[in-house]
Amino acid sequence: MRSQHNAFHLAIPARDLAESEEFYVIKLGCHLARRYADRITLDFFGDQVVCHLAPDTPVQTPRLYPRHFGVTFRDGADFDSLLRLVEIRDVPIFMKPQLRFEGTVEEHRTMVLQDPSDNLLEFKHYVDPRMMY
Amino acid sequence: MRSQHNAFHLAIPARDLAESEEFYVIKLGCHLARRYADRITLDFFGDQVVCHLAPDTPVQTPRLYPRHFGVTFRDGADFDSLLRLVEIRDVPIFMKPQLRFEGTVEEHRTMVLQDPSDNLLEFKHYVDPRMMY
Amino acid sequence: MRSQHNAFHLAIPARDLAESEEFYVIKLGCHLARRYADRITLDFFGDQVVCHLAPDTPVQTPRLYPRHFGVTFRDGADFDSLLRLVEIRDVPIFMKPQLRFEGTVEEHRTMVLQDPSDNLLEFKHYVDPRMMY
Amino acid sequence: MRSQHNAFHLAIPARDLAESEEFYVIKLGCHLARRYADRITLDFFGDQVVCHLAPDTPVQTPRLYPRHFGVTFRDGADFDSLLRLVEIRDVPIFMKPQLRFEGTVEEHRTMVLQDPSDNLLEFKHYVDPRMMY
Amino acid sequence: MRSQHNAFHLAIPARDLAESEEFYVIKLGCHLARRYADRITLDFFGDQVVCHLAPDTPVQTPRLYPRHFGVTFRDGADFDSLLRLVEIRDVPIFMKPQLRFEGTVEEHRTMVLQDPSDNLLEFKHYVDPRMMY
Amino acid sequence: MRSQHNAFHLAIPARDLAESEEFYVIKLGCHLARRYADRITLDFFGDQVVCHLAPDTPVQTPRLYPRHFGVTFRDGADFDSLLRLVEIRDVPIFMKPQLRFEGTVEEHRTMVLQDPSDNLLEFKHYVDPRMMY
Amino acid sequence: MRSQHNAFHLAIPARDLAESEEFYVIKLGCHLARRYADRITLDFFGDQVVCHLAPDTPVQTPRLYPRHFGVTFRDGADFDSLLRLVEIRDVPIFMKPQLRFEGTVEEHRTMVLQDPSDNLLEFKHYVDPRMMY
Amino acid sequence: MRSQHNAFHLAIPARDLAESEEFYVIKLGCHLARRYADRITLDFFGDQVVCHLAPDTPVQTPRLYPRHFGVTFRDGADFDSLLRLVEIRDVPIFMKPQLRFEGTVEEHRTMVLQDPSDNLLEFKHYVDPRMMY
Repeated sequence: MRSQHNAFHLAIPARDLAESEEFYVIKLGCHLARRYADRITLDFFGDQVVCHLAPDTPVQTPRLYPRHFGVTFRDGADFDSLLRLVEIRDVPIFMKPQLRFEGTVEEHRTMVLQDPSDNLLEFKHYVDPRMMY
Repeated sequence: MRSQHNAFHLAIPARDLAESEEFYVIKLGCHLARRYADRITLDFFGDQVVCHLAPDTPVQTPRLYPRHFGVTFRDGADFDSLLRLVEIRDVPIFMKPQLRFEGTVEEHRTMVLQDPSDNLLEFKHYVDPRMMY
Repeated sequence: MRSQHNAFHLAIPARDLAESEEFYVIKLGCHLARRYADRITLDFFGDQVVCHLAPDTPVQTPRLYPRHFGVTFRDGADFDSLLRLVEIRDVPIFMKPQLRFEGTVEEHRTMVLQDPSDNLLEFKHYVDPRMMY
Repeated sequence: MRSQHNAFHLAIPARDLAESEEFYVIKLGCHLARRYADRITLDFFGDQVVCHLAPDTPVQTPRLYPRHFGVTFRDGADFDSLLRLVEIRDVPIFMKPQLRFEGTVEEHRTMVLQDPSDNLLEFKHYVDPRMMY
Repeated sequence: MRSQHNAFHLAIPARDLAESEEFYVIKLGCHLARRYADRITLDFFGDQVVCHLAPDTPVQTPRLYPRHFGVTFRDGADFDSLLRLVEIRDVPIFMKPQLRFEGTVEEHRTMVLQDPSDNLLEFKHYVDPRMMY
Repeated sequence: MRSQHNAFHLAIPARDLAESEEFYVIKLGCHLARRYADRITLDFFGDQVVCHLAPDTPVQTPRLYPRHFGVTFRDGADFDSLLRLVEIRDVPIFMKPQLRFEGTVEEHRTMVLQDPSDNLLEFKHYVDPRMMY
Repeated sequence: MRSQHNAFHLAIPARDLAESEEFYVIKLGCHLARRYADRITLDFFGDQVVCHLAPDTPVQTPRLYPRHFGVTFRDGADFDSLLRLVEIRDVPIFMKPQLRFEGTVEEHRTMVLQDPSDNLLEFKHYVDPRMMY
Repeated sequence: MRSQHNAFHLAIPARDLAESEEFYVIKLGCHLARRYADRITLDFFGDQVVCHLAPDTPVQTPRLYPRHFGVTFRDGADFDSLLRLVEIRDVPIFMKPQLRFEGTVEEHRTMVLQDPSDNLLEFKHYVDPRMMY
């Protein structure tokens, strides 16, 4: 039921929009779709992420649960490409690439990045594509 | 670049998993993909939403900014279908359907729902599909 | 002529809906679409299977012919993935994976599973994709 | 997750293969894929239905539940086309076209045909495509 | 510009429709779409071939030029599959598989089959897919 | 089973290649793919037609049966577009647009054009798309 | 042969990159893909346009021929959407929307925009989609 | 957002249309779509390139920046195929195939061809497909 024509929409806080643009566009290679005084909108791996200016977002060590977002790639090569980009461009990593649930059907590779406003981004690739959901 | 084969991945807090399943599966018509003691995973309009058990999530009136998520539909009929479902099944509404940015290129219909853990879900449809990002 | 947008619809008997949900959703990894007092509906590998409550369905050793259902995979890797899941999760097998019609154009791998209401599920992969029909 | 490349596989009993071919190919317009002494295989609206010779299948008034199969069309025009064919070619009808669950989200048109071996075929079209599963 | 939704339409003579059905459906694995007194229609590798009854078609050694038809496969594995079927099922061959225009951009594998009414069927696979037209 | 990636291949006689190019490319709007001394190859509505130089092809009034070729359009608007082109550019018509098999499931619009070497081209559009084969 | 997966690549001169970004991203709604000291790269309606810094590009009244670029839309609604954006956002127009070649098969709507470095952008929509090439 | 149904449109100068046709159609294997007294239109790797007759285009050594065009292939095999064609058919090369930005995320293979009117054509393949824009 995933349609190529819709877009997932996620709004997240940004302490500083220039920093967000630097992280998402220049570092992570997302495309800048629109820029306003109070937010920027991104084509984030084909979906839409909006960074809303929220300068008062408290600075604290982020926790992975219960709140994070990202992409589950159907094709392992896309995970590899992203990992290569993360290493070459030195993107801040919250949790290094690792294998989770090894030996179960839910087995997958995962890595977690951290944006300048401490939002956590998880990227995954499952051995069994039926487990993507 | 939106690929039909990947899935956006979003993890959100749930105070009670049974309530979340009732809201997302029985009310909103999402498909239950997997169920564990500490989370359920959903096929949410073709993407993956994971409800992580977080019973201590504070109860407070939710604010729309900076954090919410949802779907931007390419086709207005999908917005209409969802609105019809929301009305027939009496899904809790945070913000009624309305037109935003009327007369600009960014003009779109939007409505915001509220899940039992006070996560806010925004659904949108743009007049100009190029503004979906 | 197989359209991505339609769904094959199959209704089968279920002696106990909770058992069916356990088998199809938790074991086999199908997605639960809808749940009612007298049936559950499933996203079964992209098609719809409905389990109708039929508690009086006679208990008897099932026979493979003439009645069974399943999926013919275009890509052998999907057969392998399913086999791996069946082994890891110990899904009840009626007929072990085997090669049928070896050396003919109709050559294919097949395995048959058994659900808690004794419905038989056949999964296949053909060497020659033109034989899928 | 419905892939254009896989095929749903359904095996059903046929008291007489020539009668089945007459019903499915000449009447209903399915394509005959393969013909053997003990079965014929059909491209049934893009999926595979196999009629297995089972001459001893008891003759009895069929019941719609719990066992039947068919197609849920995404596009109402496909339901209309099939209905037109059924009327022009006088295909045996078990249950006339009707609206079910009117006024609910599950509202759909349905009709049920009857093949010469008393298998029942249900064709549906939902107002809300998210209810197809 | 090749649309998945259209069909190439080719009408050819058949001295005997039963022979044609035997060749195209039982041997070559095409699907029988419709059968009439004076013609049969085939789903021929996704396009439509119609065999029109023309009992007086002169019997003579066919020539490859200027008139023949067939399929150019994008993927070499489809050529291999067909070749395997031709060998296993002993389909009449007019010209054995060979490489043409070796060392040029137009290099391709080709084989030519002969139907019971002496129509010639050419199947091809090009090294460079841009040469398929 | 119609794949967007393959191409139907049809070879036909041409008494004069320049005339064929004039007819197919300049008049009918097909794309010229390749040109050689003894043939031209065309992207004919997404499939491949090859005109082989055969200057001795006898001149005689063509008959529609048993041999002709063309396209069955899924969408009636494509039939209309072609008809408009035929009229504006004065493409030679063998049989004017007409409705065939009216009131049956096989009902379709058809027109037949004639190329300079007297090959006949039939274009069709069926009311019921399942009859395209 | 247009593949969704490739991208047309066009490099054009820009006298000032900030002006180009303002025109293409903020005004025209293209997505900024990458930004370097000497160029920016754009997702221009799904293809890639690169603005190379060329401050010495002579200022002169641009001519439409022989050099310009743009998009031919398959769907007239996309032309309409763009026109609406051009009007609302006051994008500089070189040639107002008009109908060209009226009454011929090549009939199409066209409009031409002008970027800050005097590159001309033509957008078109043809009555007959076969004329898009 | 790249749609299979639209076409990028590029107009370039041609000193001599016959030379352009020779280069693009006979050498490079593009398809000739339309031919007029003052221009030819091409299906250039799925997009539209129009060569406008401009006999007075000055003859000078072309420079790669800021103006050139071409295709970025998603699949490296398409780059290889084109390179093979360039070598076999001796297409004029402006810059030999080389690796650019090695060791960075933007790493890609590139080659530049030169048409008879001194337009430069760049073809690329990126290691990381996200850098295609």
